[in-house]
Amino acid sequence: MTMSSLDITVEGIFTANTEGSFVSHSIKEVALEFGGIRGDRHFGVTFPADARQPMYPRGTEILNKRQISILAMEEVEKVAEELGIDHIRAEWLGANLLVKGIPELTKLPVLTRFLFPSGAGLINEGENKPCIHAGNEVQRNYPQNETLARAFVKKAMGRRGIVCSVERPEAIRLHDKIKIMLP
Amino acid sequence: MTMSSLDITVEGIFTANTEGSFVSHSIKEVALEFGGIRGDRHFGVTFPADARQPMYPRGTEILNKRQISILAMEEVEKVAEELGIDHIRAEWLGANLLVKGIPELTKLPVLTRFLFPSGAGLINEGENKPCIHAGNEVQRNYPQNETLARAFVKKAMGRRGIVCSVERPEAIRLHDKIKIMLP
Repeated sequence: MTMSSLDITVEGIFTANTEGSFVSHSIKEVALEFGGIRGDRHFGVTFPADARQPMYPRGTEILNKRQISILAMEEVEKVAEELGIDHIRAEWLGANLLVKGIPELTKLPVLTRFLFPSGAGLINEGENKPCIHAGNEVQRNYPQNETLARAFVKKAMGRRGIVCSVERPEAIRLHDKIKIMLP
Repeated sequence: MTMSSLDITVEGIFTANTEGSFVSHSIKEVALEFGGIRGDRHFGVTFPADARQPMYPRGTEILNKRQISILAMEEVEKVAEELGIDHIRAEWLGANLLVKGIPELTKLPVLTRFLFPSGAGLINEGENKPCIHAGNEVQRNYPQNETLARAFVKKAMGRRGIVCSVERPEAIRLHDKIKIMLP
């Protein structure tokens, strides 16, 4: 089953390539590789297990299913609205892609495919659970509200987007139209 | 959530390493690698797209989510019973692992983990849809029944096991106890 590609677009592409920083910054296009975006902090076909994979000893080399993170503009706007703040930037959440036209992106089933005009393909590896790091970054930008970090984690649950693997590594460009294929 | 490991065991390990053949043969243990079982026809972190990935041109190098196939003894026995035949061997279906103690293996959600005593981990990439090749192999072993190949495809639907990626590459040994973790 394929959802219409007419109104699903890439509104932002980002990479988090600053040592020690969670925050990503905007780029105009990216040449994907197997493993994600070279230089990004989540790049790699494999990566060291962390707190999200407690079944393996910390640091064990395991398959990387968190290569590319995607945010839905509609979901982020709703979270900002409920938090009573003007906006949340995709960069603050360390996102790699910001898309428009999938209002419930986070609820898409695992294995849903995202197909791009270049032939690139991403595959949904599941919901990106909100963490306090992203919350802290939101709060840092609204320092007057001291409870924002924890409020973000709560309000963003189920709306913080997804993580994907690169299934076919080609280019993604700003304003690309995306075709969604349900599994 | 973790299911009891008490009664879930590895009853068979197999590799399909004969050029041009779908059929696997029994081995006693395997040292997994990222990509699966070296020498097996499904080995590889990436592999060429085929009929199961019609969204990519045939032969395109894509991420391999079909590295290891697992069959449940209980499901295979039920299919054989409904087909009115004495047994179906895991080898005929090109399986890599035969397990006992998960009666509805095929219905486990995507991203379910299989953890082995060595520390090895597999992760469920979804149902393995029955194909006519496996059906033909079943029929070849019961040549008196000419409709068996197509009957297999029908009866095995939802009971032909799953395919997995190697998440952590260590050893799997015959009679290993397996721990199941739901996503």
